[in-house]
Amino acid sequence: MPEFRVIEGSVTAPQGFKAAGVFCDIKRLGTGKGSNKGPKRDLALLVSERPAAVAGMFTTSQVCAAPVKVSLERAKQDYAQAVVVNSGNANACTGKRGLADAGLMTAVAAKALGLNAKDFLVCSTGRIGVPMPMPNVKKGILAAAHLLGSSREHAAQLAEAIMTSDTRPKEIAVQLKIGGKTIRIGGACKGAGMIQPGMSATGARPAAALHATMLGFITTDAAVEPVALKRSLEAAVAQSFNRITVDGDMSTNDTVIVLANGLAGNAPISLRSRDALKTFQAALNHVALELAKMIVRDGEGVTRFVTVRVNGARNYEDAEAAARAVANSELVKTSWFGGDPNWGRILGALGYSAAKVVEEKIDVAYSAPGGKKLTYALRKGAPTSVPFKTLCQIVAAREFDLHIFLNIGKGESVVYTSDLTEEYVEFNKGDVSDPTTLGG
Amino acid sequence: MPEFRVIEGSVTAPQGFKAAGVFCDIKRLGTGKGSNKGPKRDLALLVSERPAAVAGMFTTSQVCAAPVKVSLERAKQDYAQAVVVNSGNANACTGKRGLADAGLMTAVAAKALGLNAKDFLVCSTGRIGVPMPMPNVKKGILAAAHLLGSSREHAAQLAEAIMTSDTRPKEIAVQLKIGGKTIRIGGACKGAGMIQPGMSATGARPAAALHATMLGFITTDAAVEPVALKRSLEAAVAQSFNRITVDGDMSTNDTVIVLANGLAGNAPISLRSRDALKTFQAALNHVALELAKMIVRDGEGVTRFVTVRVNGARNYEDAEAAARAVANSELVKTSWFGGDPNWGRILGALGYSAAKVVEEKIDVAYSAPGGKKLTYALRKGAPTSVPFKTLCQIVAAREFDLHIFLNIGKGESVVYTSDLTEEYVEFNKGDVSDPTTLGG
Repeated sequence: MPEFRVIEGSVTAPQGFKAAGVFCDIKRLGTGKGSNKGPKRDLALLVSERPAAVAGMFTTSQVCAAPVKVSLERAKQDYAQAVVVNSGNANACTGKRGLADAGLMTAVAAKALGLNAKDFLVCSTGRIGVPMPMPNVKKGILAAAHLLGSSREHAAQLAEAIMTSDTRPKEIAVQLKIGGKTIRIGGACKGAGMIQPGMSATGARPAAALHATMLGFITTDAAVEPVALKRSLEAAVAQSFNRITVDGDMSTNDTVIVLANGLAGNAPISLRSRDALKTFQAALNHVALELAKMIVRDGEGVTRFVTVRVNGARNYEDAEAAARAVANSELVKTSWFGGDPNWGRILGALGYSAAKVVEEKIDVAYSAPGGKKLTYALRKGAPTSVPFKTLCQIVAAREFDLHIFLNIGKGESVVYTSDLTEEYVEFNKGDVSDPTTLGG
Repeated sequence: MPEFRVIEGSVTAPQGFKAAGVFCDIKRLGTGKGSNKGPKRDLALLVSERPAAVAGMFTTSQVCAAPVKVSLERAKQDYAQAVVVNSGNANACTGKRGLADAGLMTAVAAKALGLNAKDFLVCSTGRIGVPMPMPNVKKGILAAAHLLGSSREHAAQLAEAIMTSDTRPKEIAVQLKIGGKTIRIGGACKGAGMIQPGMSATGARPAAALHATMLGFITTDAAVEPVALKRSLEAAVAQSFNRITVDGDMSTNDTVIVLANGLAGNAPISLRSRDALKTFQAALNHVALELAKMIVRDGEGVTRFVTVRVNGARNYEDAEAAARAVANSELVKTSWFGGDPNWGRILGALGYSAAKVVEEKIDVAYSAPGGKKLTYALRKGAPTSVPFKTLCQIVAAREFDLHIFLNIGKGESVVYTSDLTEEYVEFNKGDVSDPTTLGG
C-alpha cells in the first residue's frame, strides 16, 4: 500500500513555492519581446519562500553545458532557494562566454528577487553551440520575477517554458503524511529526444550510466536534512530517469533538481529517521518514475512504450547491459513500431551485448504493462507453440512489458524504452533551411 | 603505388574456382521448386578444384547461428575446398536440429561432388528461429552441383544467391604479380542491415568488436601457407568489415571466408616471405575494404556514406569508442539524412562516449571523401567563422568524410557509416501479415 496519493498540480503544490514562465524569444523567432504571450513560454523561475535543502543530479557527459557546470557546484551546498531555467538554447559548447552567461542569469534573477546568486541554480535546454541571447534572457527574467505566483497555473507556466520537442507538459504531485504532518511533493520535467540520461551528483559516471536532454524539477515542503535529501534523490533517479531511453543519446544538459523547504513543519527527516525516510523515499520514487515514464511516452515519434525486464543475469551489470542492448537496438525498436514480436532480433541484441548469455537458457515473454500473466515466445532458446498472432496481439498495444530471463544468475534490471519510428527520423533529420531547428 | 589492378569478375576470377547459384525456395514463397529460375537465387556453391588453404572470421555474438558453429571449427583446419551458402533462412536460434541441418548441408554437398563433408564450410543468412526447409535445400544443392562453372556469370549467380535486403550484388576482383607469377583475388559479399560486424577467427571478441548479417567470400589462386593466410585475413577484416556500421546491430551469422588454392604457381607465401606477404596483404586489404564499403553504400535506406576519422585520442581504444559513438548516434545519423552538418550532436556523442575527451580541445572538420582540404566547423571546441552554408554543401554530397581531432594523444581510428533514414525504419518495421519478412 503506498502511503501517498496523487493530487492535482506540480511544483507549486507544496507550500511556499512560486513559479512563473514567460516568452522572451530565446530562439530568436522574432515574434515577441519579453512578453508573456507568444508562441510558447521559454523562460521560467522557480522560487522557494525560504532557503531549502538542495540536491541535484547532472549529466555525466564530458561535453556538459555551462549551466550544468554552475548548478553542479551550487547543488553541493546544503541549501539553495531558486532555479532559473530556459528552453530554446542549451548554452552548451559555448566556452567561457557560456559560463559567464549562466552565472549572469543567476545574478540577474537573484538581484530581481533580493537573493544571492549562489542561492540560484540554472538550467538550459535547446540549441547547442549558439551564444545565449542575453538581452532577451534578462528581459525574460525580470518579467518572470514580476509574475511569480503559487497557483496551479503558475506551475503550468514553468512546465510549458521548459518544453522543447515535447508535445505536452509533464507534471505530477503527491501528498502524504509524515509524523502527523501533511507533506507534498511536486514535480515537472521535459524531454522527448536525446534521451538516455546517466546522471550523477558529482559528475562521476554511475555504473549504469549511458546517455536526454531531460530537465526535472521537484519541490517539497517536507523538512529533509540536506545529506538525506541528496541520498534520496540519488536513489530516486537511479530507478527512474537513469532507467529510460528513447534514442540512446545522452545529452549535454540533463539535470534533476530537488528543493525541500521544510514548511510542512515535520521533524526534519535524516538518514537516521528510518521510517520517515522510507515513506518519503517511496513518494519521491513515485514522482520521479512517473515523470520519467512521461518522457518516454512523449518521446519523439513514439507509438509504443515498452518496459524491458531482465532477470537471471550473472549480476546487475550484466542485467543492465542486456536490457540496454535490447532497449537501444534499432532493429528491435523498429520491429515494435510494426507491432512485430520479433524475438530473433531480441536474441541477436542479447548475443552482442556485453552481458554473458547462453542461448539455450534464454526465456523471452511478453505481458500487458505490469502484468503477471506472461506469454512466452521462447523457452530455453527455442520457440514455444504460442501462435504468432497471440504475440502480435500483445505487441499491438501501445504499452507492454518484455520479460527476458537469462537463467544464469540473480542479476535484475528494468529499462523503459520506446519504438523507433519514421516520425522520429523525420523530426530529427533537421531542416538546414531553418537553423533554429538545429542542435540538441 | 598499389601493386595490383582491379579486373572484371569476382570469386571465379582466380584459376580453379567454380560457382553456381540456384533458386530452391528457402523462404517457402511457394513460387518454384529446385528451379534455377524464380524470384532470386537463394543457394550457391563455391568450389576449388583442389584443396585450398582456408581462413575464416566469424561473428563474436554469443547467439551465433548453427552454420557459424560448423564453419568456425572447419576454418581452423589448414585446408578446405568448398562452401555451401544460402539466403532466406539464417539457421540461427534453431537448436540441435539447426546444428544437424548445417552439418547435413555440407554432407549433401560433399557427396554430390565426391568430397568429404569436412572440406566444406557452410553459411546462411535470412530469417532467424525457423528450421531450415531441408527438402528444398537438398534439391538446391544437387541442382547447383550440376551447374558449377567458372565463368563471370557463375560468379554472379553466387553474388545474387547470397543477397537478402541488398539492392545489388557486391563483387570485386584484382590482379597482381608475386614472384613473376600472375595472381588473382576475387570476392563477393552481402549485407545491408544488422550491420556492425565484430568478427574474430576464434570466437574471442576483438577489442573493437561490436556488432551485420554480412557474408563475404574471397578466393585466390595464390599459394599461401595456411598460417599466413589466417593472419592476412585477420588483418584485412580488421581494417574493413570490422570497421563498418549501418545500424550498430551485430548479426548472429557474420562470416568471411577465404580460400587460397595455389594454382598461380608462386612460391608459397609464408610469414617469413616479407615482400610477397606485404604485396598480397595490400591487395587482400583492398578487396576486403571495397567489399565492406559496398555494404554500407547499399545499407537499408542509406542516402549518405560517411567516413568518420578520429585522430588524437588518448589511445586506440578511445579513438575507436569515439568513432563508434558518433557513427552509431541516432541523432547524428538522422541529421546527416537532412544534410545537416550538426556538430552539436557530434560533440554530444563524443561527450557520452567511453573515450576521454576535453571539450576545449576538440576540432571537427568535414571534407570530400579522402580529401586533404578540410573545412573546420569547430576549433578548440568553439564554432569557426565558416558559414553554415559552406558546411551544408559538403554534407549535401552522397559521400563525405568527418574528421574529429581530440588533440590529447596519438590514438587513431576510422569507421565507415551511413545516415539513418525513414526508409530504414519503414523497411525494418516488419510486416506482421507476412511472417517471411521477419527475423535478422
